[in-house]
Amino acid sequence: MKTVITVQELRQARSSLPNPLGLVPTMGYLHAGHLSLVERARKECASVAVSIFVNPTQFGPNEDLAAYPRDVDRDLSLLEQAGTDLVWLPTPEIMYPPGFQTWVEVEHLTRPLEGAMRPGHFRGVATVVAKLFNAVQPQKAYFGQKDAQQAAVIRRMALDLNFPLQVVVCPIVREPDGLAMSSRNTYLDERQRQAAPVLHRALLAAQAAFQAGERQADKLRQVMLETLQSEPLARPQYVSCADPETLQEIEGQAPPGALLSMAVYIGKTRLIDNAFLGL
Amino acid sequence: MKTVITVQELRQARSSLPNPLGLVPTMGYLHAGHLSLVERARKECASVAVSIFVNPTQFGPNEDLAAYPRDVDRDLSLLEQAGTDLVWLPTPEIMYPPGFQTWVEVEHLTRPLEGAMRPGHFRGVATVVAKLFNAVQPQKAYFGQKDAQQAAVIRRMALDLNFPLQVVVCPIVREPDGLAMSSRNTYLDERQRQAAPVLHRALLAAQAAFQAGERQADKLRQVMLETLQSEPLARPQYVSCADPETLQEIEGQAPPGALLSMAVYIGKTRLIDNAFLGL
Repeated sequence: MKTVITVQELRQARSSLPNPLGLVPTMGYLHAGHLSLVERARKECASVAVSIFVNPTQFGPNEDLAAYPRDVDRDLSLLEQAGTDLVWLPTPEIMYPPGFQTWVEVEHLTRPLEGAMRPGHFRGVATVVAKLFNAVQPQKAYFGQKDAQQAAVIRRMALDLNFPLQVVVCPIVREPDGLAMSSRNTYLDERQRQAAPVLHRALLAAQAAFQAGERQADKLRQVMLETLQSEPLARPQYVSCADPETLQEIEGQAPPGALLSMAVYIGKTRLIDNAFLGL
Repeated sequence: MKTVITVQELRQARSSLPNPLGLVPTMGYLHAGHLSLVERARKECASVAVSIFVNPTQFGPNEDLAAYPRDVDRDLSLLEQAGTDLVWLPTPEIMYPPGFQTWVEVEHLTRPLEGAMRPGHFRGVATVVAKLFNAVQPQKAYFGQKDAQQAAVIRRMALDLNFPLQVVVCPIVREPDGLAMSSRNTYLDERQRQAAPVLHRALLAAQAAFQAGERQADKLRQVMLETLQSEPLARPQYVSCADPETLQEIEGQAPPGALLSMAVYIGKTRLIDNAFLGL
């Protein structure tokens, strides 16, 4: 496994790796969700590259950029075990040198949900992913369904800008009690950690209501909200039942495949989760 | 020479062309300026691709999109003679299918000069060029210095987004009387055509003043403006003496290499021209 820092080192190392190459972009502090992406890439591609970069431009001014957990040594050890060929660890100065001024903006898909709560977030995501795509030149790029809106935004960007690659979105990996894997779970203290699976329970409650015949999107959102409200440590920011293509809220009847999603504060930690209705 | 329309046809045809490939993006209605780019690409690259696309997103609502001159048969004949390997002729529906919503924005460089006069113009340019780069995957891309700000914007975009290619900017090609080659010159009637070299004369007048010892940017702008005002058919929109890197107007002394530029209406036709001071 080779580790590189600069774009020049990356291009050099990349050029000797066989195609198809699979890229797994990460912000590090890797968990089983990330590793499932590496495994999938390992299965589908001749070589696998992983980027680790805590991208400052996707954090808002009051978000957790400075606190975001980091453990590069542990990450590299996990990636080596997982059969990674190349790890790119750029610095913020390499990604955003003085004079940097180009941004990739995806318009409609970035407005609701996470985009409404985190202004500028998806501009940072789309821009850094465009840079990763151009620098690494993968044939496939792997993202987790945990960040459902991000996956939709990147798919759209890749299509709209003719990136010559396939975006692969992989299922959410969960802890045994249902909590979706996230690097931010490390922020939770013991009581908060015990409360956190309420997001998953809220999704399951809406799925159960749907199985029992409930079709009204409003009612499904209400079921999720009531489940969240049953947990004293949970402060829901939004719950959503949206069109999986446009991410617009559904009014009236929700079809199978609609995207259930939510953002919930547990203490100061903001968690998200989602599921496709009826699937 | 192969001609393709869809992205799929393009990728197929591109994959059999040897690297390095040089791309010459054009809006068609080719003149000697375009052909100088193809010649340069022919000299420097193993294969040459040309795109012809009158990009609607870089035209303002009151600009000349509908009137923009087109003659594809003549273009193809000229490109064949010039030794082009591949011509891509996408339709607006191929470049901007339903649901398209991703834009590339270069911030600071796009604000003055053409950007100030043509809001949204460079967003359209940067976006379509990013698409062309991703679809064609050239190792070199050729642009004309006639569109000086465009060249600076694309250079910046390629650097900022890590496009794996070299942007090559080629000198302005002029008619014998000094008028810079432009597809829009075809809009000029006989009297207007005789008036149009005043742009070049204004640049030469500023260069002569500089050679004679004038260093004040204000004075150099005044020399250009006075030359333009000596031609009754010319209506100057702006004259500029700017930093060639940042495109900010120079106050005080102008150094060699400063960018002299202007936009001038001759009748309803808007012409631009530029030169580097002292070069």
